[in-house]
Amino acid sequence: MKQTKISEAVVKRLPIYLQVLNELYYREIQTVSSQELGIKLDLNPAQIRKDLAYFGDFGRKGIGYDVTYLIEKIRQILKLDQKINVALVGAGNLGHALCNYNKYSNDNMKITAVFDVHPSKIGTQINHLTVLPIEALAETVKELNIRLGIITVPAFEAQNVANQIVEAGIEGILNFAPAILRVPDEIRIHHVDFTRELLSLAYYLEREREADNESNLD
Amino acid sequence: MKQTKISEAVVKRLPIYLQVLNELYYREIQTVSSQELGIKLDLNPAQIRKDLAYFGDFGRKGIGYDVTYLIEKIRQILKLDQKINVALVGAGNLGHALCNYNKYSNDNMKITAVFDVHPSKIGTQINHLTVLPIEALAETVKELNIRLGIITVPAFEAQNVANQIVEAGIEGILNFAPAILRVPDEIRIHHVDFTRELLSLAYYLEREREADNESNLD
Repeated sequence: MKQTKISEAVVKRLPIYLQVLNELYYREIQTVSSQELGIKLDLNPAQIRKDLAYFGDFGRKGIGYDVTYLIEKIRQILKLDQKINVALVGAGNLGHALCNYNKYSNDNMKITAVFDVHPSKIGTQINHLTVLPIEALAETVKELNIRLGIITVPAFEAQNVANQIVEAGIEGILNFAPAILRVPDEIRIHHVDFTRELLSLAYYLEREREADNESNLD
Repeated sequence: MKQTKISEAVVKRLPIYLQVLNELYYREIQTVSSQELGIKLDLNPAQIRKDLAYFGDFGRKGIGYDVTYLIEKIRQILKLDQKINVALVGAGNLGHALCNYNKYSNDNMKITAVFDVHPSKIGTQINHLTVLPIEALAETVKELNIRLGIITVPAFEAQNVANQIVEAGIEGILNFAPAILRVPDEIRIHHVDFTRELLSLAYYLEREREADNESNLD
């Protein structure tokens, strides 16, 4: 069965839908309308109907979406119905935070191994995982069938770590280092950049202040 | 002077341009072509010329962009030529990581105060900043002219903290808690969600594996 190609923007919204739907599920709410989802997500209901229509026609007019069914369907689309093991490289504060934060650990996506390049970190414990030397990466990736890697090392070490991750056979990388990394085309890489988000926030702040000044002059 | 309205996608790319240009600057490279920037950023050169054209016509055919001038211009657009103070709420591992990571600290955007709700954290030090009780937020925001807030508390505390940040008069929020927060329309809020990035990575992994299988069947 061929899946329709889904835009990157929609793929990135699906985990948000899933989060809201899980909350409804735990509150034992069985159906939800696109209007209600719109309020919760601060999205236009028409946009929500369009997003969800990608995956078949789940909604029923006047009744809304079945919460359990929608959760199941989105989990399938995101392939959360199968186990995906993740390796994290960089056992600093951010690495610790991400391991603690592994809130999908009751889900099938799990950080199952932690690595570091610095001898002082090797052998320490993070959430029941022993920090391994980076030299053990390739072997561990094969052994545990790890498919995704997270980079939480400083910028100057990041490209070297990325190379080792790619060589180890990992297929996708989530990079937190503030560095632009070069990886082969077949490796999917997503970047999380804190300063980028902060800097773009500032752009909007200023714009609004200018708008205020303008209206004050009116 | 009215500024052209810049799309959110372009605003979010500007800090990446800035990062690459700063690297060139430190390597004492004076001009750069859109082709070279394209290779470094994995973006189409035509896209880069279009992005930069928003801010006036900087590039010169056959010579390229003047690195110093472009840095200055982007810094102006992002309002990095003025001081912006930032408050961080949540002195856990992630809060620590962000304070350490404050790589723009030689820039004008700085985390200048750290808060927590838990008595055990109050009074501890993060990067020369003493963790303050959340009750001191409003007063400190006024005193230090803080305009942006970062939320690094657990999900269940996040809405409460967001309310206090808004009441304190902060204009923009960068939220790391895996929770959907409701804030007034005039407050700009950006979300950084690790699990969302991880989950969307998985979507692409799976698709590629399916494509492989299909080509194997050919």
